[in-house]
Amino acid sequence: MAIAAPLSTYRTTVKKEWVDYNHHLNDGYYLVIFSLATDAFMDQIAMDAAARESTKTTIYTLEGHINYLREVKEGEEVEVRTQLIGFDQKRFQLFHTMHVARFDGPAATSEFMLLNVDTSGEDAKSAAFREDVATKLREIMQAHSALPKPDNSGRAIALPKR
Amino acid sequence: MAIAAPLSTYRTTVKKEWVDYNHHLNDGYYLVIFSLATDAFMDQIAMDAAARESTKTTIYTLEGHINYLREVKEGEEVEVRTQLIGFDQKRFQLFHTMHVARFDGPAATSEFMLLNVDTSGEDAKSAAFREDVATKLREIMQAHSALPKPDNSGRAIALPKR
Repeated sequence: MAIAAPLSTYRTTVKKEWVDYNHHLNDGYYLVIFSLATDAFMDQIAMDAAARESTKTTIYTLEGHINYLREVKEGEEVEVRTQLIGFDQKRFQLFHTMHVARFDGPAATSEFMLLNVDTSGEDAKSAAFREDVATKLREIMQAHSALPKPDNSGRAIALPKR
Repeated sequence: MAIAAPLSTYRTTVKKEWVDYNHHLNDGYYLVIFSLATDAFMDQIAMDAAARESTKTTIYTLEGHINYLREVKEGEEVEVRTQLIGFDQKRFQLFHTMHVARFDGPAATSEFMLLNVDTSGEDAKSAAFREDVATKLREIMQAHSALPKPDNSGRAIALPKR
């Protein structure tokens, strides 16, 4: 089956416990939703919970960046789409966009750097991806290689220059 | 009273609903805690909920960046400390660090760009800070001006160069 570019990784409805007094999705909970989309992406690269357990490997989030573009309301259905930006021996870089039906463009974008970790020993330590995981990442990267780099990828926070 | 540099803005205990199956704070919920620290900072610049309501102004989060440095456990007490990096007529840039007693350095750092918004009209629109808010920001900025720029301020996500 062809790999979608970007992938539609996650859908949810905005829960009551995620919104502020105005019934808008609270800024912190955008990241909770994006984190669930990262979990769904992990399911697609042979890193679901069962595989993590049986192979004594897991994924750590090293770093994230988020841009808030639109307010999202309690009860709205949101969809997260995911582009694989790149990967190396033990890291991968994901770019997610959050969509609601009311808007043409995304309501938010986010980017994450993630690290493969070996949990078999006393202390967890970074490690090269298992070969089946690396194969999945190569396949998705090939499907996503024609996508342009998103505008908000690699952004740094700074006040506008005067 | 002297303004602390950095400010100790927020303390909480890591809740059961914030952790993963390993009883570690889930990556998305670090941002939920940092968002609560931003709310506490807003209380210190005359932008608490009552002032936002009475003056028809509010603060939008435009952008955030987070670095995950340590695992934090269910039930642990965390403290967030906050440095004001800068501000202009309508924006301010905050840098938070999250601390738990077990570690010397921070367990996570984060940075946010926030925008002052006028909610008096039909559509919310960005606006210059009220004078009392600008005065508070100036006072905190003066107290924080001797702090070094944090290492993780202004970071961009990228795979290491090979």
